[in-house]
Amino acid sequence: MTKELVAIALGGNMILQKGQPKTYEQQMKNLRLAIEVIVDIIKQGYGIILTHGNGPQVGNILVQQKAGVTRGIPEQPLNICGAMSQGQIGFMIQTALEERLFDQGIVDKCVVAIITRAIVDHNDSAFKEPTKPIGPFYTEEEAIELHRKTKDSYINDAGRGFRKVIPSPIPLQILEGNTILRCVKEGDIVIAVGGGGIPVARENGNFIDIEAVIDKDRATDVLATQIDADILMLLTDVSNAYLNYGKENQKKIGKISIKKMKEIFDEGHFAKGSMRPKVESAISFIEHGGRLSIITSSKDALAALKDKAGTRIVK
Amino acid sequence: MTKELVAIALGGNMILQKGQPKTYEQQMKNLRLAIEVIVDIIKQGYGIILTHGNGPQVGNILVQQKAGVTRGIPEQPLNICGAMSQGQIGFMIQTALEERLFDQGIVDKCVVAIITRAIVDHNDSAFKEPTKPIGPFYTEEEAIELHRKTKDSYINDAGRGFRKVIPSPIPLQILEGNTILRCVKEGDIVIAVGGGGIPVARENGNFIDIEAVIDKDRATDVLATQIDADILMLLTDVSNAYLNYGKENQKKIGKISIKKMKEIFDEGHFAKGSMRPKVESAISFIEHGGRLSIITSSKDALAALKDKAGTRIVK
Repeated sequence: MTKELVAIALGGNMILQKGQPKTYEQQMKNLRLAIEVIVDIIKQGYGIILTHGNGPQVGNILVQQKAGVTRGIPEQPLNICGAMSQGQIGFMIQTALEERLFDQGIVDKCVVAIITRAIVDHNDSAFKEPTKPIGPFYTEEEAIELHRKTKDSYINDAGRGFRKVIPSPIPLQILEGNTILRCVKEGDIVIAVGGGGIPVARENGNFIDIEAVIDKDRATDVLATQIDADILMLLTDVSNAYLNYGKENQKKIGKISIKKMKEIFDEGHFAKGSMRPKVESAISFIEHGGRLSIITSSKDALAALKDKAGTRIVK
Repeated sequence: MTKELVAIALGGNMILQKGQPKTYEQQMKNLRLAIEVIVDIIKQGYGIILTHGNGPQVGNILVQQKAGVTRGIPEQPLNICGAMSQGQIGFMIQTALEERLFDQGIVDKCVVAIITRAIVDHNDSAFKEPTKPIGPFYTEEEAIELHRKTKDSYINDAGRGFRKVIPSPIPLQILEGNTILRCVKEGDIVIAVGGGGIPVARENGNFIDIEAVIDKDRATDVLATQIDADILMLLTDVSNAYLNYGKENQKKIGKISIKKMKEIFDEGHFAKGSMRPKVESAISFIEHGGRLSIITSSKDALAALKDKAGTRIVK
């Protein structure tokens, strides 16, 4: 029925960019632009699973949680804030996408947003070394005091101030995978794995409360592999991954074999926290049987599917 | 495969009761109790769709939204807060339910939470007369000032202070109905229609931003009717609807025909805002082809399904 199954990860800054007003209106404006290419891809007949970041949104929710304490509302834990952001962003994407579909005369598609959880191992070494900054900024003095009180870790985040850091464990499995696959096979456009999924860990059947955040590109790879998707597409600001990025001799990476891409990866060409997790996820997808991994911008996404743009990793 | 399809609406106070601490831990404690009977019903082989209120949670989110403004985070509109609460509560129910299922040796069920929207008519007369109090309490002076600034309506809510009131329009259709039905038919336990669904209205294909809240029992009826469920079960504090409730001659209503129930309804036996919308929804479900509507407590839910307790409305 559908041509091929594509899991597409929307970059977090496609919904809210640094410095923009954090309003609903601004986010919808950004999303309406961001989803244009998604509708173009839908029109090509692909089955679509759409995943997304939640960094700015969950950051805002965390600030609101802290502010609410002064008015008698206790803070909810991070996993709850993540679940909230999935509802928030899922609904916004639904709205933007269905309007655009209607506008383009496509009225037989249902866009569904599914609350998604990702299983992690609570013995993942990431829990010993938290690395991912989240939430509000503090002064050094405040951070020291907070660390003393809570034992949470704080770091100086790129000179902008001190922030709490939490673990970013590897996602092992998407709990809603079967449901997501079933929906997309029946023609739904599925929004899932928001913010990398809500991390959960089990011990003797019970869920353990954990405070962590999962890289959305890694989680999208895990889902795509799990449901046997054909294509993994990681959207970002740039049209391609680069050799020697930012240097004089930088060079776009176009179509490339998994073998060659792994060599380049091992040479350390990709910046940690930015292109590196994307390339890692893209490689992993092919290694686990995927047909094509794409890293590109929204602008070049359609051309990339037609093998004419973007970084395309194949067997 | 499954015996019959039951749409079960959990009362809002099953998740958080008035006066209880508004913490995650308290809500999970309540939910772990509330879902015991759901697992008992699952064990009987029924297909389950679980809906829920969101009053206390969305109330808390609204307070946090207002508090966040002082720290630079603009308030998100009510529909976004509703979507957030669906994520929050959906995830909490998943957690509680899957733990209990595991505990009972049921490991072949996936509990999925689906962000759910309900179509309303933006010409619904409810928009002319807002009736549903939401969010924080204000003094009379504050309410007058807020009304002057925003044109929002405020009422004195049962002597507890002034609150904003918003419209509660009739839900016409659940947009995710097909997906929900498909999931439950395949054996998923589906959490949907949280807080009555996010109200949406369309005009020329575009969604109109509306500020409203939908009665969750009405929305559950609409979903149950739409997907041809067999049984509508509305859970509440009391085991039955009553004739002359609270009076000396009060009398439990047990099994009753739709004809007789409508007569009683028309006599005005049911309190507005409490039992009345439940009875209305229960009647509507049978009128639209449902086999059985149940109004009862968690404690009596299983017995009610076996025709031994609760108010049971039939053809």
